[in-house]
Amino acid sequence: MSDDVSSLLNSVRIVLVHTSHPGNIGAIARAMKTMQLQRLYLVSPKTFPCAEATERASGADDLLSKAVVCETLEEALTGCQFVVGSSARFERRLAWPMLDPRECATAMVAEAEEHEVALVFGRENSGLTNDELACCHYLSHIPANPAYSSLNIGAAVQVFCYELVMAARAGLDEALGGAVAPNQELATADEMESFFVRLEQTLAALNFLDANHPGRLMRRLRRLFNRTRPDQTELNILHGVLSAAQGKKLPKSG
Amino acid sequence: MSDDVSSLLNSVRIVLVHTSHPGNIGAIARAMKTMQLQRLYLVSPKTFPCAEATERASGADDLLSKAVVCETLEEALTGCQFVVGSSARFERRLAWPMLDPRECATAMVAEAEEHEVALVFGRENSGLTNDELACCHYLSHIPANPAYSSLNIGAAVQVFCYELVMAARAGLDEALGGAVAPNQELATADEMESFFVRLEQTLAALNFLDANHPGRLMRRLRRLFNRTRPDQTELNILHGVLSAAQGKKLPKSG
Repeated sequence: MSDDVSSLLNSVRIVLVHTSHPGNIGAIARAMKTMQLQRLYLVSPKTFPCAEATERASGADDLLSKAVVCETLEEALTGCQFVVGSSARFERRLAWPMLDPRECATAMVAEAEEHEVALVFGRENSGLTNDELACCHYLSHIPANPAYSSLNIGAAVQVFCYELVMAARAGLDEALGGAVAPNQELATADEMESFFVRLEQTLAALNFLDANHPGRLMRRLRRLFNRTRPDQTELNILHGVLSAAQGKKLPKSG
Repeated sequence: MSDDVSSLLNSVRIVLVHTSHPGNIGAIARAMKTMQLQRLYLVSPKTFPCAEATERASGADDLLSKAVVCETLEEALTGCQFVVGSSARFERRLAWPMLDPRECATAMVAEAEEHEVALVFGRENSGLTNDELACCHYLSHIPANPAYSSLNIGAAVQVFCYELVMAARAGLDEALGGAVAPNQELATADEMESFFVRLEQTLAALNFLDANHPGRLMRRLRRLFNRTRPDQTELNILHGVLSAAQGKKLPKSG
């Protein structure tokens, strides 16, 4: 069983965005390794590598030496087909699809059988920005005390990793439900990102978008298209529609 | 709901036996408070009270000042009708009844409706002695990596307290159900149909579609947009995009 669990969890990346305290990075490596997770991605960590991180990792320093350090979140998500952002609060602003850690783990483990998946944690104090949230298919929130929701980031990662190992053990055969496009390979996070860039350019060219303030509308469209999780053929069709809208000749697709 | 959860969890004691590091006591107070647990019992802590504990408690120091310091485990368990000991390892020696943290939380919350209950954590390095185990009705074990089971005690308490709050909420709260856009009313089938008719007209006008044989491509687009299940606001945005693509003035939406 242990082998199955750990090979399944090997498709899961834990991505830390702009972590300030190296001690937290070490504690997270330890939390991950106790739960059989191995793949740590660090987006612009403030201080890394660092003796304090190694010390707090307490025997999980092999995860630190294998950690992938990236400049941007997009880079860390390259090749991922399912992305969940951890949120310290309920995000009221946009009502992003919200999972609790158990639902999150069930969905991620189901996806991890075939795809690369990522669980993203934001800054210790301010979490993820709106642009970073827009890279996520779902958000997940630990149901904390409304009067005191200040979970340490290492403790939060421990809870999510615990749920991932529980889900991986529970049954490797649980289906996700209808939400996934069948048959074809799903578009990856970087492919979706290219699509969103082109979508934004096209809508700006159509004067549908104020090119200087595209934020809110683009976030809504990202959420909508991320939710539908296009496969490669569908993404080609969507690119074709954009080409047509831009008045270009386009290769026939679909 | 929050009131019910917290009054239910108010029957749960977290008991720490011979804790060595005051920083861990602080981290545990923080972990407890984030999960609405309030009652901390300390059996012969090595150093307490202590500035390091207060610092690590990070705003949960009210739990430290209310903490009950005892000489013996028996004293800390006075009045408890249900006691679970947390174990870092499977205890093969005694074949104690063993629960995972979820089963533990379910059992404790069920008991907590009528009784005082306690969850006991042993020394950082050596856990609970046989005499201390003998005070417990059950043991509970976080399913850790067989090759690296070294959970920090604060992280372990966080996991158990998380499971306690999940169990307390479970009875009071219905599951969220994942993939649907929340808040807003979803578009109805007839509204989706009107959208698809307009989408088809627009794509035909863009010469993206052979108006006489639109079948296969439109079926793919229908599947894609049906899968995402747009709400009313999102459908308005999509209509706006079609209007822009058709070169019409459009009412601002979104």
